[in-house]
Amino acid sequence: MIRFLTAGESHGKALTTIVDGFPSNLKISESYINQQLKRRQFGYGRGLRMRIETDKAEILSGVRFGKTLGSPISMLIRNADWENWQTLMSVDSINKKTQKISIPRPGHADLVGVSKYNFNDIRNSIERSSARETAARVAAGTIARKLLEEFGITIGSYVESIGGIYPENNFAEKLFNNSIPLNFSAQSISDKSDKSSVRVLESEQEEKIIRKIKSAKKNGDTLGGTFLTVATGVPVGLGSFINYDTKLDADIAHSIMSINAVKAVEIGEGFLLAEKFGSESHDEIVMKKDFIQKN
Amino acid sequence: MIRFLTAGESHGKALTTIVDGFPSNLKISESYINQQLKRRQFGYGRGLRMRIETDKAEILSGVRFGKTLGSPISMLIRNADWENWQTLMSVDSINKKTQKISIPRPGHADLVGVSKYNFNDIRNSIERSSARETAARVAAGTIARKLLEEFGITIGSYVESIGGIYPENNFAEKLFNNSIPLNFSAQSISDKSDKSSVRVLESEQEEKIIRKIKSAKKNGDTLGGTFLTVATGVPVGLGSFINYDTKLDADIAHSIMSINAVKAVEIGEGFLLAEKFGSESHDEIVMKKDFIQKN
Amino acid sequence: MIRFLTAGESHGKALTTIVDGFPSNLKISESYINQQLKRRQFGYGRGLRMRIETDKAEILSGVRFGKTLGSPISMLIRNADWENWQTLMSVDSINKKTQKISIPRPGHADLVGVSKYNFNDIRNSIERSSARETAARVAAGTIARKLLEEFGITIGSYVESIGGIYPENNFAEKLFNNSIPLNFSAQSISDKSDKSSVRVLESEQEEKIIRKIKSAKKNGDTLGGTFLTVATGVPVGLGSFINYDTKLDADIAHSIMSINAVKAVEIGEGFLLAEKFGSESHDEIVMKKDFIQKN
Amino acid sequence: MIRFLTAGESHGKALTTIVDGFPSNLKISESYINQQLKRRQFGYGRGLRMRIETDKAEILSGVRFGKTLGSPISMLIRNADWENWQTLMSVDSINKKTQKISIPRPGHADLVGVSKYNFNDIRNSIERSSARETAARVAAGTIARKLLEEFGITIGSYVESIGGIYPENNFAEKLFNNSIPLNFSAQSISDKSDKSSVRVLESEQEEKIIRKIKSAKKNGDTLGGTFLTVATGVPVGLGSFINYDTKLDADIAHSIMSINAVKAVEIGEGFLLAEKFGSESHDEIVMKKDFIQKN
Repeated sequence: MIRFLTAGESHGKALTTIVDGFPSNLKISESYINQQLKRRQFGYGRGLRMRIETDKAEILSGVRFGKTLGSPISMLIRNADWENWQTLMSVDSINKKTQKISIPRPGHADLVGVSKYNFNDIRNSIERSSARETAARVAAGTIARKLLEEFGITIGSYVESIGGIYPENNFAEKLFNNSIPLNFSAQSISDKSDKSSVRVLESEQEEKIIRKIKSAKKNGDTLGGTFLTVATGVPVGLGSFINYDTKLDADIAHSIMSINAVKAVEIGEGFLLAEKFGSESHDEIVMKKDFIQKN
Repeated sequence: MIRFLTAGESHGKALTTIVDGFPSNLKISESYINQQLKRRQFGYGRGLRMRIETDKAEILSGVRFGKTLGSPISMLIRNADWENWQTLMSVDSINKKTQKISIPRPGHADLVGVSKYNFNDIRNSIERSSARETAARVAAGTIARKLLEEFGITIGSYVESIGGIYPENNFAEKLFNNSIPLNFSAQSISDKSDKSSVRVLESEQEEKIIRKIKSAKKNGDTLGGTFLTVATGVPVGLGSFINYDTKLDADIAHSIMSINAVKAVEIGEGFLLAEKFGSESHDEIVMKKDFIQKN
Repeated sequence: MIRFLTAGESHGKALTTIVDGFPSNLKISESYINQQLKRRQFGYGRGLRMRIETDKAEILSGVRFGKTLGSPISMLIRNADWENWQTLMSVDSINKKTQKISIPRPGHADLVGVSKYNFNDIRNSIERSSARETAARVAAGTIARKLLEEFGITIGSYVESIGGIYPENNFAEKLFNNSIPLNFSAQSISDKSDKSSVRVLESEQEEKIIRKIKSAKKNGDTLGGTFLTVATGVPVGLGSFINYDTKLDADIAHSIMSINAVKAVEIGEGFLLAEKFGSESHDEIVMKKDFIQKN
Repeated sequence: MIRFLTAGESHGKALTTIVDGFPSNLKISESYINQQLKRRQFGYGRGLRMRIETDKAEILSGVRFGKTLGSPISMLIRNADWENWQTLMSVDSINKKTQKISIPRPGHADLVGVSKYNFNDIRNSIERSSARETAARVAAGTIARKLLEEFGITIGSYVESIGGIYPENNFAEKLFNNSIPLNFSAQSISDKSDKSSVRVLESEQEEKIIRKIKSAKKNGDTLGGTFLTVATGVPVGLGSFINYDTKLDADIAHSIMSINAVKAVEIGEGFLLAEKFGSESHDEIVMKKDFIQKN
C-alpha cells in the first residue's frame, strides 16, 4: 500500500512530503519531478508567487544511484523567497510585534480556520490552506506517475473552459463516443495542452480566454473553469465493488475534490447522463474478433 | 473514530453490517432503523424486488435496553425471499447444475467483475455489485444519523430532476442565495419529498416525471436523475485543510460517488461556479450585530 | 488488504464478524470453520459456558457453492443459550427491573469499562470485554488460515506451561537450535497438542497440571500459563523494516497481546536473549550447496 | 487522529518525519526536541556514529512563533557526516564504481532485505533497516510527549539489566506491589537513569555492567539487556476492549516491538504472572474514602 503525507506552510521554510510503500528498483530523478513541478507553475495569469519560485524538489531519501530503495521517499521543496519571510514565519517565538491578518476572505478557509484552530491571526490558517500545498502533492504524485508508467498507464489533462469559454471541437464528446483511436495515449493530450498558456487545445479559444482574464483582472475579479483528466492503459478491474471505500470512482472523486477550489467532479459524461435515457448512457459491449490475439 | 463494513449478496441469506466505535448511551431502536430502510424502498417505479422485501434490520449486538453500549453494533437484514434462492445462492457446494449468467449488461460491473475475480458465472459478481448493498449502508448510516441528531444536525434530500424534468421553483438556487430562513431544518425537506412517490417537491413535476417513466418503461428504457442533499446545524470547522484526506468536500464526494450509478457530485453550485466571476461565487462575510448573543 | 471487524456481546443474540478483502475462488466451508471453533472450546477445566455452547459459524455471505466470491465474508455465531438471556440482554428497552452487576472484579475491564463508557451496570461493560469475543476472531482467523494454507503455510501451537509446570523436553529450545527437521510442519505440533486436554505435549506434564488445576479450583483460585505458536512455510520477506508499522514482529506482538489475559509476548528466544552474548544470539548464515536447486 | 511517517537512510542526506493531526497552540521548540535526541545518543559504549553526530532537529513546518499551527509538523535531522557519504549514497546515478556490501550479517535484515527488495548491494537494505531510523521516531515521539505533558502524563524509563546484571533493588517489584508513593512521577525515573552512562539506577550495577561491556568488546562480542518504561498521570480508560485493534496493551506491544532488536515485551509483571495464582496476580480494588475529593 502506497501512502503519503505532505507538510509545509505557503511561506514557510519548505514543503515536504514522504511517500511510503513505493516499490524498489524504479528509476526516479529530481529532474523528472521538477518537470512536473514546472508544469504546475507555468501559464498565463499565474500570480506573482508563481513567478518568484521555480519549485525544485530535493530528494532526501528513498532513492540511491537513481533508483528507488523501497524505503520512504522524502522530498523537500524549499521556499525560494524564505529570506523575506523568516521573521514573519519564524518557527521560534520572536520579540518583535508582527502584523496580523484580521480580515477573512470569502470563499477561503480563513474564518473557519481561525475558528477551528483558535488563532487570532488569519495567517496561521491560510499558510496551510493555501493551494501552494499542491506543490508537495505534485511531487508525491509524480512518484506515483512513475509507477503507472511502468505499466504503460499515462494520465493527461487539459483545460476545457475558463470563464464559460469552451472549445469548438468537443474532445470530451469524442472520447465518450469512442471515436478516439484505440492507440490514443493520454500523454498526448497533456503534450498538446502544455503548449497553451492556459492549457486549452484550441488557439482561438486561448485568445478569447486571455481577453476575458485580462478584462476580469481589470475589474479586480477572477474566473472559474473546468478541466478534463483522462488515463489510458488502465487495466480492467482497478478498484472494486466490494465495499464503499474500494470503489475507483469514489477514490477519484475524493482526490479531485481535495484540490483547492474544486467544487464538482464528473466521471465520464457525469451530469449529462442524468438527462439521458439508459439506452443512450450505457456503452454497448461488443465482442471483437481476434481481440485477444491482437492485444 | 467510527468505521463500518457491510457484507451480503443481493439474493444471499442476509445483508449484515458492523458499525464500530460508536459512543455509548445513545438511544437506538430497530424501528428507528427500519423507518429509514422503508424510506429507501418506497416510491414509484421501484422494481419487483423492492415490493417483495420490506427490509427489517435486526440488531444483534451493541445495544442493550434500547441504548448503545459503545461496543460494535451489528445488524442483520434478512432476505425475505431467501427460500426461493437457497439452492441458487447456496453457501455449500451443491450437486445440481445451476443456470449461469453469461451475458454481461453494459453500464454494470458484470464483465469487469468476472474478469477481476475470475468467475465463469456473472451472478458471482452481480450479487455484490448490486445496489442492494446500500440497504446495509442505510442501516449503518442511520446509526450515524442518530449521533448527528444529538448535536442538532439533520440531513435532508429531495430529487431535483428525473429524465431532465426540473421543478419550477429552484430550491437549490434559493439555498445558495441564502434566501432560506435561518431556522430552516434539512429534515423538513425530506419530510416534504417523502410524500412524493418520486421524492420531488412539486406535484406538477411529479406528474410529468411519472408520465416520462411510464413511457420509458414501455420502450424498455430507463431514466437518469439528480438529487440534492443538505445538512443543517453543522458546526463550523468539520473537516480540515490540513491534509488531502481530511477535507470535508473530498469525503462527501467520496461517499456520494460510492453509491451505485452516481457519476457526478457537486458541492454548492458546483459546475455553475466554473462560468461565474469570483465576485459572484464567493459568499460575502457579514458581521452580524448581536449574533453571538442570539446564538 | 484483508481487514475484519467483530461484534457481539458474550450473552447477546450472536457474535458476528465481517472479513473484507479476501480473494475469490478459495474453498471455504462452515465445517472447516467449526473445526477451529471446536478446538477453541475443548479441554480440561473449561467453564460451564464452554460446555453449554458448541459454537457453530453460519456463513451469511461471501461464499457460494463452497468457494469465496471476493466479497465480504460475514459469519454468525449464535448464542446457544440466548433463550435464557433474552430479557437480561434485550436489545429493546424493557419495563422490568433487572439485576445489575455492581462489584467490579480485579484483573478485568469491569471498573474501567463502566468509567469510560458511563454505565451503572457492570454487565454493560463485561459483555464485550469477555474473552468470548475471541470466538468471532477464531472464525475470522480461520478464513485467513485458509489463505495461508494455499501457500503451504501452517500455524501450530501448544501449551508450554500451566502454573509453572514445564515439559521435560524443551521443544522450544530445539526449535531455536535448529535441531528440528527441515520438513517439520507447524500443523504437526497442533495435531499432537490437540490430543491433550490441556494442550501440552507430554502426558506426565499433563497429569501434573491437571492435579494443580484441581487443587487451585478447590481453593477458588486460578492458574496462569504460557503457550508457543510457530508457523512453517513462511516465505522470506513478510513484513518490512520500511516503517514502524510494517514490521512483522510488531504486528505479531500486537495480535498476541490483543488476546484477553495475555500480558507478555516473545519472538524467538525473547527475554533469554537479554542475558546472552550477541555471538550466542544470532543465527549464523550458512550457504547450502544445491539449496536453490532442491527448493 | 495523530499519525506520522518517517523517512531517511542511515547515511543519507537527512532523516525526516511528518507528524500529522497534532493540535494547535501547543508550545514546541527545536531545543525541546533536541534534548530528547541527545538523550537517545548519550551513554557508555555508544558507537562511533553516535559520537560523530549530535543530532539536531530542524522544524520545517507546523510551528510558528513557538506554537503549533495544527498543520503537519515536519522535521529534518541532517546527517552531520553527509560530506563523506555523498558519493556512496548519491541520489543521482553516478559513473564511478562503488564498493558493494555482499556479506549479510546474522541477526539483521541484510539478507532478507536484498531478497525482498531485489538488490545486489546489501547497503541498499541496511541503510533503512538501521536503528538510526529511531532518531526520526524520537523527534516524532517528542511531539507526542508534548501533548501528554499538557495532561500531566509523563513517561520515564531505565535500563533494568545488561548482560544479565540486574540491580539489587527491584524497582519494578515495588512498582507492581504498589509500594511506590502515589505522587511518583515517571519523569523522576528518567531523571535518575539519565545520570548513569548505561541508564541504570544503581552505581554498583553500573560498574559491573561497564566491566562486562569492556570484556565483551575485547572478544568482539555484544550484550543484550532489558529496560522498563512507566507512565504516570494516565487517565482511566485509554484504549478499549471494543475491538482487537483498540486495546492499549496491544498498541504498546506493537510500538515497543517495532524498535530494532527488541524481541520481547511484557505488560506489568508479564511472564511472571504465568507462574502465579490468580489470587496473587490481580490488583485488589479498594474503595478509598474521600478519594474523589482529594483528586
